[in-house]
Amino acid sequence: MAPPTLFHDDPETTREAIMQATYRALCAHGYADLTIQTISDEFEKSKSLLYHHYDSKDDLLLDFLSFMLERFQADVPHREFDDPYRHLQQVFDHVVPRSLEDESADFRRAMTELRAQAAHDPAYREHFTRSDEYFQDRLADLIRAGVEQGAFRDVDPDETAAFLQTVIVGATTRRSTTDSKHVDATRAELDAYVESRLLADERR
Amino acid sequence: MAPPTLFHDDPETTREAIMQATYRALCAHGYADLTIQTISDEFEKSKSLLYHHYDSKDDLLLDFLSFMLERFQADVPHREFDDPYRHLQQVFDHVVPRSLEDESADFRRAMTELRAQAAHDPAYREHFTRSDEYFQDRLADLIRAGVEQGAFRDVDPDETAAFLQTVIVGATTRRSTTDSKHVDATRAELDAYVESRLLADERR
Repeated sequence: MAPPTLFHDDPETTREAIMQATYRALCAHGYADLTIQTISDEFEKSKSLLYHHYDSKDDLLLDFLSFMLERFQADVPHREFDDPYRHLQQVFDHVVPRSLEDESADFRRAMTELRAQAAHDPAYREHFTRSDEYFQDRLADLIRAGVEQGAFRDVDPDETAAFLQTVIVGATTRRSTTDSKHVDATRAELDAYVESRLLADERR
Repeated sequence: MAPPTLFHDDPETTREAIMQATYRALCAHGYADLTIQTISDEFEKSKSLLYHHYDSKDDLLLDFLSFMLERFQADVPHREFDDPYRHLQQVFDHVVPRSLEDESADFRRAMTELRAQAAHDPAYREHFTRSDEYFQDRLADLIRAGVEQGAFRDVDPDETAAFLQTVIVGATTRRSTTDSKHVDATRAELDAYVESRLLADERR
């Protein structure tokens, strides 16, 4: 998920400028009402450039999804987990926050629409398979480190990570598609799950 | 989620016949490629009837969603939970199954697309808020009964139900939008969660 400041700086390359315009147009219009025209309205450089680089709205959006994932991968290098329990809580604060800024809520709604394209479009499906596996593997690394350090019990890191990634996708999807006030309750029980099932006895 | 036999019988009313045609067209085409024409191709009665009753594809699909929810509510009356733990496992077998028939997978993919319309369409949002709350409340009833009977620990039924509904939505969404083989792992950890967090000590 993109933090609100993701495109804060002036873009350095044309591709980055296109991606910034796409991000803004997605937040403002969502997927359904998006056209190459609404994206080009957010784009300060030559509009013909957009039509030159991309055949269709989906072509551009798929490149946007790849860009976002690459950017996330570059920003979050594999690193040591000093305190896996605290690190996991920070992940939850970021991806299952109790409240959201408007821009972040708009962006998540658009991402939910993009993900749904994967139900019938193989190119979107390939992307979301790749990104889900990337985030799930990162969670598994974190849990494995916690088990090795004795912070977590001897759980299966891959099964635990699959479950957590499912909770994260479910929370994002429900938040984007309902007015149900479930997030506080979901988050409270998610925290209770981690305490009762993951946290080593001496850490509770 | 609709069992494959949901529309097995010959429809008794015109509305039921329209709903059966909509179900078939959704399974065959998904949301994106659906038109009133593709639905009417599955409809054996006068096609003009469809255009007479519904202004648009979304108008028809929203009626279909209401019909499915009403049907589910009628089929699953509020009843006693003889064995809440076993009942919960049956719910999981139905909504987070380890494998799916093709028709059921097609239908879930279409439902994921319909849910994503709620990101920008207030009428879809109203429906998915209502249906999420209905299913979450049913889960809370089941957990409350388990706590009262001593089968489950003294957990908060509403928080637990919110969390489980989030897992169910997440598992359905991931299955519909990725080729990731996460379901067995998600289900294994879901069962472990229920055992470690919900199940009363004397039941383990």
